[in-house]
Amino acid sequence: MAEVQVLASDGSVKKIDRDSKEGLQALRQTTALLLAAALHQQFDGIRLGADVASDDGFYVDSDKDDVQVSADELGQLEDGIKKFAKDDAKIERVEVPLADALAEVKNDPYQSELLKTAADNDKVALFKVGDFATVATEDVLCYVDVVKNFKVLSVAGAYWQGKSSNPMLQRIYGTVFYKKDALEDDLKARQEARERDHRVIGNDLDLFFVDPKVGAGLPYWMPKGATIRRVIERYIIDKEVANGYKHVYTPILMNLDVYKTSGHWQHYREDMFPPMDMGDGEQLELRPMNCPSHIQIYKHHIRSYRELPLRIAELGMMHRYEKSGALSGLQRVREMTLNDGHTFVAPSQILDEFKSILQLMIEVYHDFDINDYSFRLSYRDPKNTDKYFDDDEMWNNAQTMLKQAMDDMGLDYYEAEGEAAFYGPKLDVQTKTALGNDETLSTIQLDFMLPKQFDLHYIGEDGQEHRPIMIHRGLVSTMERFTAYLTEMYKGAFPTWLSPEQVKIIPVREDLHADYAEDLRKELAAAGIRVSVDHRNEKMGYKIREAQTQKVPYTLVVGDNEVKDSGVTVRKYGEEKQVSKSKQDFLDEILGDLSSYSRE
Amino acid sequence: MAEVQVLASDGSVKKIDRDSKEGLQALRQTTALLLAAALHQQFDGIRLGADVASDDGFYVDSDKDDVQVSADELGQLEDGIKKFAKDDAKIERVEVPLADALAEVKNDPYQSELLKTAADNDKVALFKVGDFATVATEDVLCYVDVVKNFKVLSVAGAYWQGKSSNPMLQRIYGTVFYKKDALEDDLKARQEARERDHRVIGNDLDLFFVDPKVGAGLPYWMPKGATIRRVIERYIIDKEVANGYKHVYTPILMNLDVYKTSGHWQHYREDMFPPMDMGDGEQLELRPMNCPSHIQIYKHHIRSYRELPLRIAELGMMHRYEKSGALSGLQRVREMTLNDGHTFVAPSQILDEFKSILQLMIEVYHDFDINDYSFRLSYRDPKNTDKYFDDDEMWNNAQTMLKQAMDDMGLDYYEAEGEAAFYGPKLDVQTKTALGNDETLSTIQLDFMLPKQFDLHYIGEDGQEHRPIMIHRGLVSTMERFTAYLTEMYKGAFPTWLSPEQVKIIPVREDLHADYAEDLRKELAAAGIRVSVDHRNEKMGYKIREAQTQKVPYTLVVGDNEVKDSGVTVRKYGEEKQVSKSKQDFLDEILGDLSSYSRE
Repeated sequence: MAEVQVLASDGSVKKIDRDSKEGLQALRQTTALLLAAALHQQFDGIRLGADVASDDGFYVDSDKDDVQVSADELGQLEDGIKKFAKDDAKIERVEVPLADALAEVKNDPYQSELLKTAADNDKVALFKVGDFATVATEDVLCYVDVVKNFKVLSVAGAYWQGKSSNPMLQRIYGTVFYKKDALEDDLKARQEARERDHRVIGNDLDLFFVDPKVGAGLPYWMPKGATIRRVIERYIIDKEVANGYKHVYTPILMNLDVYKTSGHWQHYREDMFPPMDMGDGEQLELRPMNCPSHIQIYKHHIRSYRELPLRIAELGMMHRYEKSGALSGLQRVREMTLNDGHTFVAPSQILDEFKSILQLMIEVYHDFDINDYSFRLSYRDPKNTDKYFDDDEMWNNAQTMLKQAMDDMGLDYYEAEGEAAFYGPKLDVQTKTALGNDETLSTIQLDFMLPKQFDLHYIGEDGQEHRPIMIHRGLVSTMERFTAYLTEMYKGAFPTWLSPEQVKIIPVREDLHADYAEDLRKELAAAGIRVSVDHRNEKMGYKIREAQTQKVPYTLVVGDNEVKDSGVTVRKYGEEKQVSKSKQDFLDEILGDLSSYSRE
Repeated sequence: MAEVQVLASDGSVKKIDRDSKEGLQALRQTTALLLAAALHQQFDGIRLGADVASDDGFYVDSDKDDVQVSADELGQLEDGIKKFAKDDAKIERVEVPLADALAEVKNDPYQSELLKTAADNDKVALFKVGDFATVATEDVLCYVDVVKNFKVLSVAGAYWQGKSSNPMLQRIYGTVFYKKDALEDDLKARQEARERDHRVIGNDLDLFFVDPKVGAGLPYWMPKGATIRRVIERYIIDKEVANGYKHVYTPILMNLDVYKTSGHWQHYREDMFPPMDMGDGEQLELRPMNCPSHIQIYKHHIRSYRELPLRIAELGMMHRYEKSGALSGLQRVREMTLNDGHTFVAPSQILDEFKSILQLMIEVYHDFDINDYSFRLSYRDPKNTDKYFDDDEMWNNAQTMLKQAMDDMGLDYYEAEGEAAFYGPKLDVQTKTALGNDETLSTIQLDFMLPKQFDLHYIGEDGQEHRPIMIHRGLVSTMERFTAYLTEMYKGAFPTWLSPEQVKIIPVREDLHADYAEDLRKELAAAGIRVSVDHRNEKMGYKIREAQTQKVPYTLVVGDNEVKDSGVTVRKYGEEKQVSKSKQDFLDEILGDLSSYSRE
């Protein structure tokens, strides 16, 4: 066991296993401190925010307006850090009067604030390395010679103290390990994640953007991203309508009283947006869920058992208040549109309806080529049944039916006791994001409670009123999260049917072949294909490369031969070979792609 | 000139022309008073709200919870009113101590409140007819014998004092005239408007509903209404995309600061929803317009003159605070989705772009068979040019170009000087609703100001920065208003391509022909047709009538002959005749309808 000596903010020193979690954290904190020191050395007058060991590396904030650190200068900062290690620098703790410490940083409002926060009885503890000192916070290493296997990775913006009303600082990220192998593995994984990261691809392919100044967690879908979303939306609506779902549009605002009836306001308030006072005692609330809206649709008529299962669906826009630190591209947003559906069933219909939803889900996954997922059935905790909606028979029946449906359909799953919601058992479909986070792609959730809260009923064959059960289900999650997921899964190379641009036509010479290219474009567009001609004054090779970079499924090069033969020369995305064929053969090929949702 | 004697609330009496506006108002107020008296006589213990002469008749509010007045009892109320007239009743004014008046109505909170509001120095003036008395407000007729040509029309709900937090009263409506002919004309016009009124049709065909308790002005689109909307949305997006528009999705929330930059907050605040405080100094605002959102899309890249005209479009959801009294079905709502588009052009491109938008609009109108509209060009006021955005050359050029475009395209229009917005001239397309209100269906609006406010530019051929002009345009208004408009225009009989249900199949006998009907349904559904089978245990004649009531374009009756010949017997909506034909001939017919947007 290799040990390292760590220094705590209170001045105590102890030895710990460097391979423990604390050992790695101390290394990260130490490297952050050295990075801050290097910034201080290299950029005269720089103002320094916090230096932090994070869960996957470290970062240091500094002032952006006065001194810009460019990506090119990151290597220079690495050299600065290395020098401390080479010089066998030692980190020491000193305790000084707050007033003295503040005088040292009088032009730095961030350090001043950090010092004031950390001060105790007008004294403050500092960590010092060389001639640089800053507030002593988390444990650091006493000797910095082990800071060798590290990399300063990138620079991005971050608000001071995470508040959008505060100035934007620059945040410099890095990663560090005790061993060289570990660093290399980490850098490789980062590279891979970066290549899959939907935020990176979304920017490279111009699919979407988020601007925190205009609204954090509120994405703008650029034309290409919007096209992908529109294709997904039309696909899922058509699929659902063909499967007996009745699609509706319901308002995204509701009287707050409805959420009091549903219980969302009592139990879910911190995830909801603030209500708006409309005068006359009316408070309107941006909906965090679509269920109460679909309940209004159900309640608008007296329902008969003949109408069940009644399947109401919507691409329903919702708003949830996520903390700004949790927001991420399209994956974690504050405004989202859910592929939502609510089926109202008689208790005896749970099994069949659950199977029918599963069947639909599997067909949808197949069309999108989604294969890497697992099923999780969540039951109530059998030892704590009083924590759940009180109807033993209902729970037992429902849980048995869910399990039976999975078995009947030959699906693998794991069972999670105690993971059910208060109001009923559920099935989740779990996947992972490029960054390794767990993601729920689909969910089928039984609900015994809302039908009671809203006093729903249907007239049974016996002429009496009966209580339906609600099944909440989302096949492809929100449009935001699903698009993020697909972008990562396909690494931006969307199958033809989803590609925002399906065909790029490149005339060999603009003066000779542009007309033919335009005629071809019109023919393809008339067949419903998303196609454009690259008329720019650039070299052909450049245009072909760019079509590849933009991951266009088909690039058609047209020159003398193509004009003569009335044909096309086809280059598919990711392939080197070019194949000449007739226009009709190409059209058949691409229409075949579209009708089969092909990913070839 | 026929004169009538009117009694004012202050007790003064004068003669006025009964055919004047005041004469009609006094008649309406008198009849309202008599209706209140009749309610008082006929319903023991009823509580009475206000009796009001409105712009198109009169109404009286009364308490709904204790005593329900049904539609059947309206005739009985008419008899009660007639009796006053027959008895030559006279309306008298009395002044009594407020305390005495309150004692008389001690079980009626509404009358009590009205009395207190009207009281002056602890005295209150009443109008009295027979043994009924209520607060004296507007002028009434001294002699009620002229109250002969009237009708009590309908009963509906209305909040006490118009506030949704108050109890719901019942409001009984009526209409009255001095002459019998005038009443008859009015009733005919009401009947016609009723038949066209999208709120009535929307209810009869189950297209949508609004529930003020859940949210005033926030419509729920039932499955059939949602289908119509979805068809419109897909049509207009496809049409726009084919015409070079880039469709996007942008968030409906924005940082309030953006609306301060745009000037909406300063000039448009009373139509906006209250901002939501998100903490950290951030205030989010539900957007009242989509322009600032599309400006974000424009600004996300540096734009070149080669990209212009840049056409950004969206089905953009917006929220506007309309007073609850102004809300009406789908026509006046608080949440709406606009067929919005913004074109960014160089000044020299205004003429061509304006023509291209007009051309597109005319094509769209043609597909929807919209013919009854007029064009209005709005210019700045030449005598008050300082009231407008300050750029004479821009205004002169733009106005000249707009006029020239209309002339070039051979379109009739009228010119309204002084009707332009502050920021640029515009074209509106005007229509009328069933209720006779003016409605703007489409608009093309030039804007010199927002590009300046948001400092937009593009790089010209000269390598320099230039300021673009924005053109706001909506082809088919909001989905809400357009659906209301179409519902009224078609009187609910939507053309096949828009019909939520295109084909209804009716088996002659369920036991013999249901299978054939189902096979037929599947064939038609596979061809993309919205079709269902009426399997209910009802008489065939009843099912056919109901398909007509629901205005289904095609009803197919299938019995022995159809099964034998593998054919169908077709009955088109609104026709009596039934035609037998082969399945293929029918399929060709309906697919022809769809591809030609036929309204036959």
